[in-house]
Amino acid sequence: MDYGAFFRSELNSLREAGNYRAFAELERHCGRFPSATCHNGPGEVTIWCSNDYLGMGQHPAVLSAMHNALDRCGAGAGGTRNISGNTHDHALLEAEIADLHGKEAALLFTSGYVANWSALGTLASRIPDCVVLSDALNHASMIEGIRHSRARKVIWKHNDLVDLEARLAELPVEQPKLIAFESVYSMDGDIAPIAAICDLADRYGAMTYLDEVHAVGLYGPRGGGIAEREGLMDRLTVIEGTLGKAFGVVGGYISASAELCDFVRSFSSGFIFTTALPPAVAAGATASMRHLKNSNVERLHQQANVAQVRRRFDAIGLPHLDNPSHIIPVMVSDPVKCKLISDVLMKDHRIYIQPINYPTVPKGTERLRITPSPVHTASDIDHLVSALEALWTRCELARRPVAA
Amino acid sequence: MDYGAFFRSELNSLREAGNYRAFAELERHCGRFPSATCHNGPGEVTIWCSNDYLGMGQHPAVLSAMHNALDRCGAGAGGTRNISGNTHDHALLEAEIADLHGKEAALLFTSGYVANWSALGTLASRIPDCVVLSDALNHASMIEGIRHSRARKVIWKHNDLVDLEARLAELPVEQPKLIAFESVYSMDGDIAPIAAICDLADRYGAMTYLDEVHAVGLYGPRGGGIAEREGLMDRLTVIEGTLGKAFGVVGGYISASAELCDFVRSFSSGFIFTTALPPAVAAGATASMRHLKNSNVERLHQQANVAQVRRRFDAIGLPHLDNPSHIIPVMVSDPVKCKLISDVLMKDHRIYIQPINYPTVPKGTERLRITPSPVHTASDIDHLVSALEALWTRCELARRPVAA
Repeated sequence: MDYGAFFRSELNSLREAGNYRAFAELERHCGRFPSATCHNGPGEVTIWCSNDYLGMGQHPAVLSAMHNALDRCGAGAGGTRNISGNTHDHALLEAEIADLHGKEAALLFTSGYVANWSALGTLASRIPDCVVLSDALNHASMIEGIRHSRARKVIWKHNDLVDLEARLAELPVEQPKLIAFESVYSMDGDIAPIAAICDLADRYGAMTYLDEVHAVGLYGPRGGGIAEREGLMDRLTVIEGTLGKAFGVVGGYISASAELCDFVRSFSSGFIFTTALPPAVAAGATASMRHLKNSNVERLHQQANVAQVRRRFDAIGLPHLDNPSHIIPVMVSDPVKCKLISDVLMKDHRIYIQPINYPTVPKGTERLRITPSPVHTASDIDHLVSALEALWTRCELARRPVAA
Repeated sequence: MDYGAFFRSELNSLREAGNYRAFAELERHCGRFPSATCHNGPGEVTIWCSNDYLGMGQHPAVLSAMHNALDRCGAGAGGTRNISGNTHDHALLEAEIADLHGKEAALLFTSGYVANWSALGTLASRIPDCVVLSDALNHASMIEGIRHSRARKVIWKHNDLVDLEARLAELPVEQPKLIAFESVYSMDGDIAPIAAICDLADRYGAMTYLDEVHAVGLYGPRGGGIAEREGLMDRLTVIEGTLGKAFGVVGGYISASAELCDFVRSFSSGFIFTTALPPAVAAGATASMRHLKNSNVERLHQQANVAQVRRRFDAIGLPHLDNPSHIIPVMVSDPVKCKLISDVLMKDHRIYIQPINYPTVPKGTERLRITPSPVHTASDIDHLVSALEALWTRCELARRPVAA
């Protein structure tokens, strides 16, 4: 077989379908987020699609903790958690996470992707005859973890309690069950009915696994996520989160009972056989989490900016998905126009918003996914709104009726 | 089902089998490697089992690059590579890696585990009807990647060319084939016959995928690994490596043709849907790689220490696996004694060597895996040798005959 020809042909198919991804090469400037230099673009740009939702990636407390840990402990951990790579900074971070979610324990992974893949994969494969009930819009990492487990998977309609209950009712009472879902869904920004899902889990004897990666740091009085805001943390079997979005660093985790965490720690290939996160990463994440447990300023400012961007979009009839979260999906609903708008925003307006096309979202729902943060200024918002208004006119895109 | 009871029972089974893992909680001291404080042990200890093989985790060039990038760009990348997380530091690192291996391109992953899992999983699942020929002792991350692909897997006897050829000869000429193997095997420290495997790959039309995680930085005039040392880099389809061992930071990569890297970049779930490594991590790894391309001091000093430790062990008849690498497996061949020796080394001698038991190695081959580095001093070596000699007497363990 001509392997090279095969790769070229597959890449060409992607290009022809308009799904080939080109990466913007950015260099963010600490202290000047959301500004960045785009090395393969027009130079200085404003980022409107970052998952550093609160700008914690440039917070002095985070940077100071990381500098300090680098000077104290050096760069890498030097091994897996089991073989010389388990550091005091990991222990402190896991205690901080467990405290955040009101759980007995927490377990760190190298990323949120690996946390989902490893934890779901381990639970679903090791618990005899386990069935996973998976929300239809779960993230790729959850899907891959469940697939890897080879456990039976039952997909329920997104956020649909009637469908979930019907699926649960079909299963034998004694069969082990795990309901896997997210709180804030990344692409639509909608939020799961967590309390009602927990009610169903109780009724049918299921464990619950809640991915809060787009919520930790952002919701709840201490940044514990939607489950904290709604007083539900103790009802969830596992809360999974990330250190790479609102906490501004990198890494992922689960928080749960001591025995569940110890079980995953002891049996998960993706936890055991991998080099631990650098102590400086752990120290930075700990500092970020501590700060956001005690400070509401970032969350309030973010929420105000989100509300303002929504109001301004409404005022010019820009179509965006209404949702109760911080994620503003501006619907273009055409892959070519979506990419074009993104290119023009970058080139003519120095605004960077990555176009979100298939397969990340269904065909026909192509969008600009906008994430206002507390570090966007009023003038950043003015600039964004006027650029989008000009483009909507230029590309003859549909608008919503504007209220009088 | 009582899930908690199930977890407890599984953990108890591990404990009863002597396979429950307790982690040493370490705090390394930058500038004083291999020293560390063991927070749940006797305090100050010397680490003899780190994979920071050259002490690059405390190298001033690495730390300075990381401090600088933190100040310049902040903590995290803020998104996936596709959505706002692709930074200039990632591009520089990928160019540095491609140069190291003499390849057109490189692709970064969050870890070596994820690199193997994602790259093997993507290649084996996407190339139609691909068969993976996998060395029997391949690392867990390769096994999981191949398993995840659901491609046909043929396991060949470890480092056995006759068996590999027999397996290749059984397959149709036109069927796509991928030979997956390692250069230095972590637990035995033996080295694959790379040239002969490449000959077989050529003869039978197979791609080659070589894991060099225990070799990059350590072998070859520029630290390109065993394949560089033997002048074979251009014969391998994919070279996989890590930034978390000899390079002293964290992260993993593949290096290959531009089209292969672009193919994996475009189709791999584990690459696409995960937050990028922090720019500071990329900058630290780049600095480490640049340094080790131009400096042999660390490698020569490490090799001298490895040779000296081996000579000293031979002089007292301590049984260790003879191998041509930097890894010295001291064979205890009993799980209880292996754990006991490790505990006594820690408690009475302030020496930390994690015991390696089943399932990491086969039952009956339990060992202490010792990794001398250039930062171990002559007095560290004296201390190690005398402690092991005392323990070998105390535990009545078998010795080799000592040459006169």
